[in-house]
Amino acid sequence: MFEITVQSKKSNARLGVLHTAHGPIETPVFMPVGTQATVKGVPVDALHDLQTQIILGNVYHLNLRPTSERIRALGGLHHFMNWQKPILTDSGGFQVFSLQNQRTIEPDGVTFKSHLDGSKHRLTPKRVIDIQRNLGSDIMMPLDICTPYPSTQEQVDHDMAITHRWEKEAFDYWQKNPNDQLLFGLVQGGTFKSSRKLSAEALTQHDFSGFSIGGLSVGEPLEILNEMTDYTAQLLPKDKPRYLMGVGLPENFRAAIKSGIDMFDCVAPTRLARHGNFFTNEGKKNIRNAQFQDDSEPLDSACQCPVCKQYSRAYIRHLNMANEALGATLLSIHNIAFVFQLIESIKSEIRSGDL
Amino acid sequence: MFEITVQSKKSNARLGVLHTAHGPIETPVFMPVGTQATVKGVPVDALHDLQTQIILGNVYHLNLRPTSERIRALGGLHHFMNWQKPILTDSGGFQVFSLQNQRTIEPDGVTFKSHLDGSKHRLTPKRVIDIQRNLGSDIMMPLDICTPYPSTQEQVDHDMAITHRWEKEAFDYWQKNPNDQLLFGLVQGGTFKSSRKLSAEALTQHDFSGFSIGGLSVGEPLEILNEMTDYTAQLLPKDKPRYLMGVGLPENFRAAIKSGIDMFDCVAPTRLARHGNFFTNEGKKNIRNAQFQDDSEPLDSACQCPVCKQYSRAYIRHLNMANEALGATLLSIHNIAFVFQLIESIKSEIRSGDL
Repeated sequence: MFEITVQSKKSNARLGVLHTAHGPIETPVFMPVGTQATVKGVPVDALHDLQTQIILGNVYHLNLRPTSERIRALGGLHHFMNWQKPILTDSGGFQVFSLQNQRTIEPDGVTFKSHLDGSKHRLTPKRVIDIQRNLGSDIMMPLDICTPYPSTQEQVDHDMAITHRWEKEAFDYWQKNPNDQLLFGLVQGGTFKSSRKLSAEALTQHDFSGFSIGGLSVGEPLEILNEMTDYTAQLLPKDKPRYLMGVGLPENFRAAIKSGIDMFDCVAPTRLARHGNFFTNEGKKNIRNAQFQDDSEPLDSACQCPVCKQYSRAYIRHLNMANEALGATLLSIHNIAFVFQLIESIKSEIRSGDL
Repeated sequence: MFEITVQSKKSNARLGVLHTAHGPIETPVFMPVGTQATVKGVPVDALHDLQTQIILGNVYHLNLRPTSERIRALGGLHHFMNWQKPILTDSGGFQVFSLQNQRTIEPDGVTFKSHLDGSKHRLTPKRVIDIQRNLGSDIMMPLDICTPYPSTQEQVDHDMAITHRWEKEAFDYWQKNPNDQLLFGLVQGGTFKSSRKLSAEALTQHDFSGFSIGGLSVGEPLEILNEMTDYTAQLLPKDKPRYLMGVGLPENFRAAIKSGIDMFDCVAPTRLARHGNFFTNEGKKNIRNAQFQDDSEPLDSACQCPVCKQYSRAYIRHLNMANEALGATLLSIHNIAFVFQLIESIKSEIRSGDL
């Protein structure tokens, strides 16, 4: 299911191939986020042009609208959104964190008050697996509690204990009717090494298809993110894929890949784009800045993406100032492509033995 | 410059080829509107997939933002927006109508109070040619006054007299420094046949590259639109292209093409799409209607467009309900494609001698 094709001798970095029902994924990989069955502002054709390997969907959002039952009846998420390559779905655990005022954690699940109409929706470990079976995602995540930062270790351990119980329940339920969908374990433990260790030990007792590191990228400093990532990654089995959830800014990849992370997702490349921000080799810039109004150069002069080959900063600035949808689309495509190119260059370093 | 390749024996319908600096255009043709240097919501790749032959830009809007001087410095409108096929630019005459509260008509031009920041911008017949030379459009329009409907014949004739003067000035200015940009004459005259006749007679005295029929599709009933189109088209030279401005709903094409119209533009296909409307062979429908929520069929079962080949009504409805940009994009592509297919089928009828 997961092959490591190159293991660095200098670090924990590795290249691999993860096999899924909708084809192989070469790792390390960045997975653009398509919360509501579309990567915001980016048509599927453009994702293919960028050689996108896998995208994300979201249990919480798709369960509310259009509902997983409807997607199932319409042929599953791949057919519904016209994306035949792999899909990973997040469990709703992140929304336990991001929608704190609209949910109640109970011993056996979470009740959300819909952000759309206030209606109540209950997610349980089993229901979350059922939703993902309805969607037909290639890689499923178990329901968990993503604890905010900062939190006391007591709070972290309290949430983690529930998470472990839920994950065990999800694992057993998945195993009872195995199909070709993968299920990852999801490690919590906040910013406390002893908790991370406990979480990794508890979850690696089950034969999950891979392991995610959750509960990071929720406001902690970069050094703590890197430290926790490195510490936790070493606690996870070498022969299974490791997925660092919610992380995907240009400055994040190198350290995490060096620690042995194989998979990343993050809304930032597309969310930043919708606010006019774009990645360059000299850092993040905002296209609305007047300095770009006569700038005939591409967004980033070293970038090989279709946007940088075809459009100037001046044009994309004009689109953004004029509130034309194409502005966010072009920036989103560039930002995703920028991240892909960054990962490719890190992969080259692993291949050549330099990382 | 304009060849008629097939002339119907049963009607005034014809097929033709209009040669421009950026290549030939097969007529009859529908020209999607790209007011602000983008066809709203539709990436250039998608326009190419649909075999779009020519698009529109707008003098009033591009002159305000980013300014025609800036576009000129950035290589012209084609390079700026990455569209190497023909572009026609409208003169701002339509904004004389649509922005009535923000403009003052003077004997030698129009002063607009910018809808963006209230600053004053003056358009004169010569300035409008200069702007279009800055843009580098293949087909230019002269500044005119588009008179509202209903208006008295006195008002229509008053505006028309100014329009004729301005067009003569534009014509002479264009002729003084001819390049490969075409300039069309623009017939006004409201819904009064005698005025239309006067306008056509006055303007056909000049050797314009083609003739536009303006001042229609501003609120008059369909029968009057058709009657005025037919009447005016017959007053225009047979050997030059005829462009019916602002007209482009599915119900408009057959009658107008039968009257000998060669070119159309209209914001409706994309504007309607942004409000959830899509064209079908059974008329216009709205994707937000609950009847589509489980509908696995394409937008129109007979449509051959990429959207109808790949996406269900249920998916596009979901995108629209979730305010995802892709929803408007897919409906816009379909609506443009629907119009293109309609024109192709009318062209087949001309070719086979049935229209």
